[in-house]
Amino acid sequence: MSFTQLDLSGYKAKHFLWRVEESVGYVTLNIPDRKNPLTFDSYAELRDLFRNLVCDKDIRAIVIDGAGDNFCSGGDVHDIIGPLTRMTMPELLTFTRMTGDLVKAIRGCPQVVISAVDGICAGAGAIIAMVSDMRIGTLRAKTAFLFTRVGLAGCDMGACAILPRLIGQGRAAELMFTGRAMTAEEGERWGFFNQLVAAEQLLPESTRLARTLATGPMFAHSMTKNMLNQEWTMSIEQALEAEAQAQAICMQTEDFRRAFEAFSAKRKPEFVGK
Amino acid sequence: MSFTQLDLSGYKAKHFLWRVEESVGYVTLNIPDRKNPLTFDSYAELRDLFRNLVCDKDIRAIVIDGAGDNFCSGGDVHDIIGPLTRMTMPELLTFTRMTGDLVKAIRGCPQVVISAVDGICAGAGAIIAMVSDMRIGTLRAKTAFLFTRVGLAGCDMGACAILPRLIGQGRAAELMFTGRAMTAEEGERWGFFNQLVAAEQLLPESTRLARTLATGPMFAHSMTKNMLNQEWTMSIEQALEAEAQAQAICMQTEDFRRAFEAFSAKRKPEFVGK
Amino acid sequence: MSFTQLDLSGYKAKHFLWRVEESVGYVTLNIPDRKNPLTFDSYAELRDLFRNLVCDKDIRAIVIDGAGDNFCSGGDVHDIIGPLTRMTMPELLTFTRMTGDLVKAIRGCPQVVISAVDGICAGAGAIIAMVSDMRIGTLRAKTAFLFTRVGLAGCDMGACAILPRLIGQGRAAELMFTGRAMTAEEGERWGFFNQLVAAEQLLPESTRLARTLATGPMFAHSMTKNMLNQEWTMSIEQALEAEAQAQAICMQTEDFRRAFEAFSAKRKPEFVGK
Repeated sequence: MSFTQLDLSGYKAKHFLWRVEESVGYVTLNIPDRKNPLTFDSYAELRDLFRNLVCDKDIRAIVIDGAGDNFCSGGDVHDIIGPLTRMTMPELLTFTRMTGDLVKAIRGCPQVVISAVDGICAGAGAIIAMVSDMRIGTLRAKTAFLFTRVGLAGCDMGACAILPRLIGQGRAAELMFTGRAMTAEEGERWGFFNQLVAAEQLLPESTRLARTLATGPMFAHSMTKNMLNQEWTMSIEQALEAEAQAQAICMQTEDFRRAFEAFSAKRKPEFVGK
Repeated sequence: MSFTQLDLSGYKAKHFLWRVEESVGYVTLNIPDRKNPLTFDSYAELRDLFRNLVCDKDIRAIVIDGAGDNFCSGGDVHDIIGPLTRMTMPELLTFTRMTGDLVKAIRGCPQVVISAVDGICAGAGAIIAMVSDMRIGTLRAKTAFLFTRVGLAGCDMGACAILPRLIGQGRAAELMFTGRAMTAEEGERWGFFNQLVAAEQLLPESTRLARTLATGPMFAHSMTKNMLNQEWTMSIEQALEAEAQAQAICMQTEDFRRAFEAFSAKRKPEFVGK
Repeated sequence: MSFTQLDLSGYKAKHFLWRVEESVGYVTLNIPDRKNPLTFDSYAELRDLFRNLVCDKDIRAIVIDGAGDNFCSGGDVHDIIGPLTRMTMPELLTFTRMTGDLVKAIRGCPQVVISAVDGICAGAGAIIAMVSDMRIGTLRAKTAFLFTRVGLAGCDMGACAILPRLIGQGRAAELMFTGRAMTAEEGERWGFFNQLVAAEQLLPESTRLARTLATGPMFAHSMTKNMLNQEWTMSIEQALEAEAQAQAICMQTEDFRRAFEAFSAKRKPEFVGK
């Protein structure tokens, strides 16, 4: 049963590359000569793709990366920044809400999202990495919340709420006020990157992690993802009740029974994701 | 004056070891051949012990450790996991709420709780360490939020709310999605462990810290513990008013006066805990 | 247009040093023989200064430091602690609320506030550093939330709410329960200090950072500062909408247009701060 029978495995993306291999969906931002900027079109298509992932039954983890040796340079200066300087307030709000909707879609899909970050990871690109569930970087990753460089505030697409919870309030403040790049080493030391790997290991390692998740208890993983969002501002007591309910639901899954049976028989469990 | 005149110093625990020495209560999980798993019975008895600590006037700090070279392996596979796979939803909720009640009891007692972690610290064992006020580990401590390994979600006993505030949102997500063990060194570097010590120093060092707290301003310490819970989701302005009130209360304690008098007389204050 | 035409550049402070140079305001706590303690008078004057900064149009960043080789030793024992031991509850509340009002004023002014910390940084001094937007320290900085040493709770001036978000819940708990000094190296490693510098570089480096901010997009910076406060307890979805609105406002500033024009002309933008 599913409300829609969407199958994204054959989807032809227009504004980035998209492919599905062994239950893992790969988004590759693909304007390498300009370090993979976002455009109005790619924003909207990304938002729609992540929204539709809610209904896909076969894709179980997502990897986002960039073509060439960079992740993403953020909103394109000529396609996005220029037009924004000429918009009315209602038009501006339509744009900033649309960018927020991309964040909601990435955090709202049931698949764990891994950003695989090489080279430049700036502006809205840094945000996409920030709102992913995990981040693997290379030693040359440079992550910059550089909104201040174009005269804007650091409060873009959830940065003032989310970045402090990843790396601490003081470091987040510095990155947002100065717009300076966080080095890969800082990113690992501060908790932004879960792991740093050599550039040639970035895709293999991201794929390995994504497949591990894809062959795991998908329903339970999506509940973990959901509750990390849900409990963001709950009191401890509210969180305990919410988790009591959420985990009781997971205890009625086939995967929980399978794990117990496998353990009893001293074999490795095979999860079916429900 | 106290509402009940409970004295836990002579309490005979049935499902773990319990002793009181120099105002410090020691809980030792004690099924060393199975790395000290929790059972339905030990869960319930721990919850009741921590609830009753609210009324005890003589116990001023708590140390939790495990017998043998391990802290706790989590919910026992045969005593707990097996039965859970056969329960109805109301029964499951009764269980998950009971585990949450243990967390509430540990965080709700006025004594500072220190977990002394050697070896395996897994599942609900990792949760007990996580919800303690401080954690001392050994170099061989392996802490795993491994619920995903049995097909469950990471949102167990408050983990999605509390773990991110200890080690950061990104690292917490990784541990919960993958179920992998956090090494002792990672635990110290990420802020899970306050300190790492050699195995033979674990109990002496935990005792030293607990006694320092037990001979300190106990009423004020319990207020600090209380407010760390209370302010979890307050706005900054609410937190400032709440602390203005809480600290004003502490300024009327005998300990505050004693500290000032000792300082004026250039001697060390002797706190009475009220 | 401004509601008041306050100009603090010529203000003569009574209880600390105050000067303005190149749009940066410098507060220097100045009782060096006692390591710059706070008094009732200096608390009140600091609160009023920071409140009035809201209306000043020319001061664009603030640096706080201490005379001699120390930052601040906290509330003066004889001027403050002694009298507090003899106050009634309404008088105590008046005091604790006034200290909270200083925090609100520091966080409420539109200027980014940088604490430049050398030597002792204790009690309310540690709080002033904690509530600043950024912190630069020297290798000999010793930061102690030592309220427990005088028999009080750690919940003073927002510490239980704010310190955990800077350095993590477990480390904050330890510092507040034990009152021990955090070393400079720990402070950098844990995210309290944004940077450590040699003592003779402390003022030059703080000035360099403050001037960078003062010549940046001041209006956008003040929005970042504001939203870091505002989003403290928002849900992720609320934060996304709040940032959509806040950033749309910034997109109508002259600075945003100037940045785009400068970029198009391949020159460095000159921000006017509005």
